[in-house]
Amino acid sequence: MPYRFADRMHCAPPSFLGKLFAVSTDPRIISFAGGLPSSAFIDVEGLADASRHVFDEEGREALQYSTTDGYLPLREFISRRYARRLGLSIPPDEIQIVNGSQQCLDLVAKIFLNRADPVAMERPGYLGAIEAFSLYEPSFHDVAFGTDGPDIDEFRHVIRECSPKFFYGIPNSQNPSGQTYTYEKRRAIAEVLEGSDTVFYEDDAFGELFFDGRPRRPIKALIPDLCILSGSFSKVIAPGMRIGWICAPKEILSQFNCAKQAADLHSNFLCQKVLSRYLATHDLDEHARRISTAYGQNCRLMCDLLDDQFPAGTAHTHPEGGMFLLATLPDGLDSMRVFEEGLKGGVAVLPGIPFYVSGGGNSTIRLNFSSMDDERIKEGMDRLARVVRALV
Amino acid sequence: MPYRFADRMHCAPPSFLGKLFAVSTDPRIISFAGGLPSSAFIDVEGLADASRHVFDEEGREALQYSTTDGYLPLREFISRRYARRLGLSIPPDEIQIVNGSQQCLDLVAKIFLNRADPVAMERPGYLGAIEAFSLYEPSFHDVAFGTDGPDIDEFRHVIRECSPKFFYGIPNSQNPSGQTYTYEKRRAIAEVLEGSDTVFYEDDAFGELFFDGRPRRPIKALIPDLCILSGSFSKVIAPGMRIGWICAPKEILSQFNCAKQAADLHSNFLCQKVLSRYLATHDLDEHARRISTAYGQNCRLMCDLLDDQFPAGTAHTHPEGGMFLLATLPDGLDSMRVFEEGLKGGVAVLPGIPFYVSGGGNSTIRLNFSSMDDERIKEGMDRLARVVRALV
Repeated sequence: MPYRFADRMHCAPPSFLGKLFAVSTDPRIISFAGGLPSSAFIDVEGLADASRHVFDEEGREALQYSTTDGYLPLREFISRRYARRLGLSIPPDEIQIVNGSQQCLDLVAKIFLNRADPVAMERPGYLGAIEAFSLYEPSFHDVAFGTDGPDIDEFRHVIRECSPKFFYGIPNSQNPSGQTYTYEKRRAIAEVLEGSDTVFYEDDAFGELFFDGRPRRPIKALIPDLCILSGSFSKVIAPGMRIGWICAPKEILSQFNCAKQAADLHSNFLCQKVLSRYLATHDLDEHARRISTAYGQNCRLMCDLLDDQFPAGTAHTHPEGGMFLLATLPDGLDSMRVFEEGLKGGVAVLPGIPFYVSGGGNSTIRLNFSSMDDERIKEGMDRLARVVRALV
Repeated sequence: MPYRFADRMHCAPPSFLGKLFAVSTDPRIISFAGGLPSSAFIDVEGLADASRHVFDEEGREALQYSTTDGYLPLREFISRRYARRLGLSIPPDEIQIVNGSQQCLDLVAKIFLNRADPVAMERPGYLGAIEAFSLYEPSFHDVAFGTDGPDIDEFRHVIRECSPKFFYGIPNSQNPSGQTYTYEKRRAIAEVLEGSDTVFYEDDAFGELFFDGRPRRPIKALIPDLCILSGSFSKVIAPGMRIGWICAPKEILSQFNCAKQAADLHSNFLCQKVLSRYLATHDLDEHARRISTAYGQNCRLMCDLLDDQFPAGTAHTHPEGGMFLLATLPDGLDSMRVFEEGLKGGVAVLPGIPFYVSGGGNSTIRLNFSSMDDERIKEGMDRLARVVRALV
């Protein structure tokens, strides 16, 4: 049957994710390719208690339709937390609840991008963003991502010459590199954008996961009217609830709200209430600290193993937080070959390729260190080292 | 700040829904304008039990990321129910879970519609669909909806001359009219579409709510390869969980899955599991029967009151199921005036206007009969009758 699909469907990059999900359920394979937070830190009992409370006290309301903007007490919690942790003043009516920060990617693209409109992002940049934006058929411009943020000369050039509708970036523990923008970079970015009409879309999925427990002030603090800031409970509480949020100036948020209403009316109200109850009765700081400490240990272990067990020419980033690092393979080694031989050798990695909008990533692989314990990391890295050594 | 939004945002029709939500929280106003199922039939205890079970038995998994297609046991339940109730053979891998059927509207439009592409629907047609489709900037074609389905001559003309990418319709208890397509209409539609390349998008949000308890065979049974069928648990279980589904031929579903992944990765996994557990341990037939019986009584009451208390020239549809009826006002009476005067008189109705893509609806109002008991219906209709009599 020759169905007449929209042109945008040809713009969807071939997705690795299907293959990766299949891999992730094969018990013989140790997967560093996914992006799951550690299941060990999901507070099942605490969330069960919160859920019981919501069903007992306000079940009927929690199970009924609700408003598009999201549950007010949850937005108030997010607002207070920004004020306390980051000194940011973001009132609840500049916050909208969404289905995890992935939904922000779709809806921000939807409200800003006409076909062929310029949009800019980091090179390499988050593949989920590339997938979401691609369906709006934009023209992509990318800016090299160094060890401390985007290259500022290139950034300035892209903003001035291409005037992208927005620049999408992950200043805290970027995906895929794991690197964090320095404060100098944040200030330089704000300076370039001031007076432009490019919005900075600041994805802060990992800001709670700095190994040193120290929060980093977002770019939103520097150029609030020019910045959209998104966050998520997926990495610190539970991804299965699909609850994230977006903060944006009112004029942007009212367009976003219109798109959200058309997309799915509102996010799961039951889970918004459960989460709100949980956050009111649990210490998120303490919880995030425990997770970050564990991820920091995992990350150091993985870096040490890359340094010690892999052939000369292997390099890697040095994350201060988050869930990923990016390893560069020895000269001439192709990431797709490592991916394929890895699967045969019982270990999955994610080639850098899907993180590039205009080619690249053939010499890098993204490794996830959040989803397993140190024994499994050792075993997996041992398998990977064997594969890489055999290919060199 | 002059933000550069996409052109599509100008295509969004002015939404009544914000105003209506505000109205729905004002205790002085009796609202027939919304679309809430009765809170009285939400089985809070049953869902609380199911939730407890999921947290106890598989909480950690339910709270983690999952696959885009949705929880397999839930899709298997939907598949079995189609087979048993409707004799439809829809395997679980032709079913995808979404955030309520509203998300289908967004994603079906996304995978099919280029800017200016033709799309067709009923006149009047569901306003949520108009809102969702509008953001893809299509050209709308509408087909008059009579008392028993779309006008077939007009339908044939639109399909042949305009070749819409898809025709969107609600054969069971249509929104806003409450009317149901006859079997003759369904067969005639299938005949027109056969050999065309227009897909029939069959929204079946209300198929479980026939007052006589008798299911109606969908158009999907007649032209399975040319039909997308969507359903929802919102009307019979709980809207706050935001769980619906779409059934489509594999080739369409794989595009839909790609769009769903880019939109929000997957629907709330916790609620998918809770719902699946609930459905495995409760009798949905029995539950739907109780709801339908109550809605049938409400509908008959409302029709009787329209017949008895309203001025000559008032008419109304005769729903066999669902949650809405459409009333036609006496000659010359404007639905916006009734809306505004109604609010002053303590009763909210929804003017027909937002249900038309090319003008109309000035003489009709949609009335919801699902969300309140008979005492409140009597009081609200009494207020409305007074408003209408005063305006005539």
